[in-house]
Amino acid sequence: MKTVRDIGEFGLIRQLAKNIPRAGDDCAVLPDGLLLTCDPVIEGVHFLPKTPARKIGWKAMARNLSDIAAMAGQPRSAVVSLGLRPTTPVRWVRELYAGMRAVAGKFGCEIVGGDTAHVRHEQFVVVTLLGHADRPVLRSGAKVGDAVFVTGKLGGAFRSGKHLTFTPRIREAQWLAKNFRLHAMLDISDGLASDLCRLVEASRVGVEIFSNQIPGRLPGALTDGEDFELLFTVAARDAGPLRKKFYEIGRVIRKPVVLLDGQPLQEKGYDHFPQR
Amino acid sequence: MKTVRDIGEFGLIRQLAKNIPRAGDDCAVLPDGLLLTCDPVIEGVHFLPKTPARKIGWKAMARNLSDIAAMAGQPRSAVVSLGLRPTTPVRWVRELYAGMRAVAGKFGCEIVGGDTAHVRHEQFVVVTLLGHADRPVLRSGAKVGDAVFVTGKLGGAFRSGKHLTFTPRIREAQWLAKNFRLHAMLDISDGLASDLCRLVEASRVGVEIFSNQIPGRLPGALTDGEDFELLFTVAARDAGPLRKKFYEIGRVIRKPVVLLDGQPLQEKGYDHFPQR
Repeated sequence: MKTVRDIGEFGLIRQLAKNIPRAGDDCAVLPDGLLLTCDPVIEGVHFLPKTPARKIGWKAMARNLSDIAAMAGQPRSAVVSLGLRPTTPVRWVRELYAGMRAVAGKFGCEIVGGDTAHVRHEQFVVVTLLGHADRPVLRSGAKVGDAVFVTGKLGGAFRSGKHLTFTPRIREAQWLAKNFRLHAMLDISDGLASDLCRLVEASRVGVEIFSNQIPGRLPGALTDGEDFELLFTVAARDAGPLRKKFYEIGRVIRKPVVLLDGQPLQEKGYDHFPQR
Repeated sequence: MKTVRDIGEFGLIRQLAKNIPRAGDDCAVLPDGLLLTCDPVIEGVHFLPKTPARKIGWKAMARNLSDIAAMAGQPRSAVVSLGLRPTTPVRWVRELYAGMRAVAGKFGCEIVGGDTAHVRHEQFVVVTLLGHADRPVLRSGAKVGDAVFVTGKLGGAFRSGKHLTFTPRIREAQWLAKNFRLHAMLDISDGLASDLCRLVEASRVGVEIFSNQIPGRLPGALTDGEDFELLFTVAARDAGPLRKKFYEIGRVIRKPVVLLDGQPLQEKGYDHFPQR
């Protein structure tokens, strides 16, 4: 009997997505430009038992805000499900909420409800966000010849602690969507190499990137997860003014492959269920 | 240092709700009549390791549908967060989704996305639902003199397995909202006694109920959780036609207390963090 580990996280998502129309973007796109997304944050996976609760809260909310950013959306309302051990201090829960509210408040997003239940072992936080975008930017719109950009430095987010303190790129995404024609966008949560694979699959194109243009030390900048920068493509003629603010890492090509300095890149991002 | 157990589930929710405007209903009510709700379902708490995955999926979705029903709303879209052990069979996950889709599909609700991550111990399912109601029914509208009704039999839901197979009262709630003026409504998830306390707190009234009118064996019908019937109040003059379909269990009174056959009722519903 095949297990989740046997097919890996992306295999599992592909299986589940078969029954989900329009799956595959950072948020589900609903009528009237509504965006809906949820993301679990689990003790021992996304944070450690000793991680300060405020940072856990920040991360749990910011990850979801990053999914709204990836669609060039505006977050509106959040609900929160908590799995808590009975021995957890009330103060810990208050700090968790303070962290969630701190980052949500930066972007005009409000926590409107939620529910709690008890666990024996790993605590978890699931934030669900409702947002809105007049014209949501999908992963599937990259065109041959596009310039490929990332919004910031990549790699080492776990070591540096950036995964707990990052600012989701809501404002950058809204600025980009307002002033340029974004062809495709997603956030880099599983590592650049892995998320480039998601981009080329969704857009049915390829990408060629160059190691000397990647903002970060290799191989970590390619394979470490949890950067939460944005990966986007625009028409080559739009690239000029963007080079001052962001990092151009390569081009969209016809051949459906990811090339690094001309060589096919192995997909080696973060997988929740790595195959043995 | 006070723990979650020290203050209990409802103490914790009261603490968290301080910072949540308009908290306290089964769903958050957003502009344009949008409803948002989420509910975790956790192994060892809401289901057992041997519970068939299809039933777990049904329950995880149906609980949330019940929250939409409690507002007399129409469910629209669901997102799903899963915490899975790597050794879980893919087939189990497919069955889980089949269960969720089966009950969502009965009410025109679609799963539009989600995310998965790994856990070592307890698996969990968090469904978040987006719905809509032109006039959401709140808990806070019960009026002195109202008749108090429940939509079905109470008690023993764990023993009978009803907690895994119940049909959320979406249609009943919509029929009630269309044909009567519902003053207050909520779903009975923590047991009638506990949910009556929620009703009187929110509406700043009291309730008197009569044991011989409660549809179910005492004390279970008062204290067992997970019935997922609806508890609602209407003006006394509307009670007549409703007695054919539902169970009238008592009256709304002025004094802020829950009386059973004239005696104050102890709140003894399900608490995730029971105080010692």
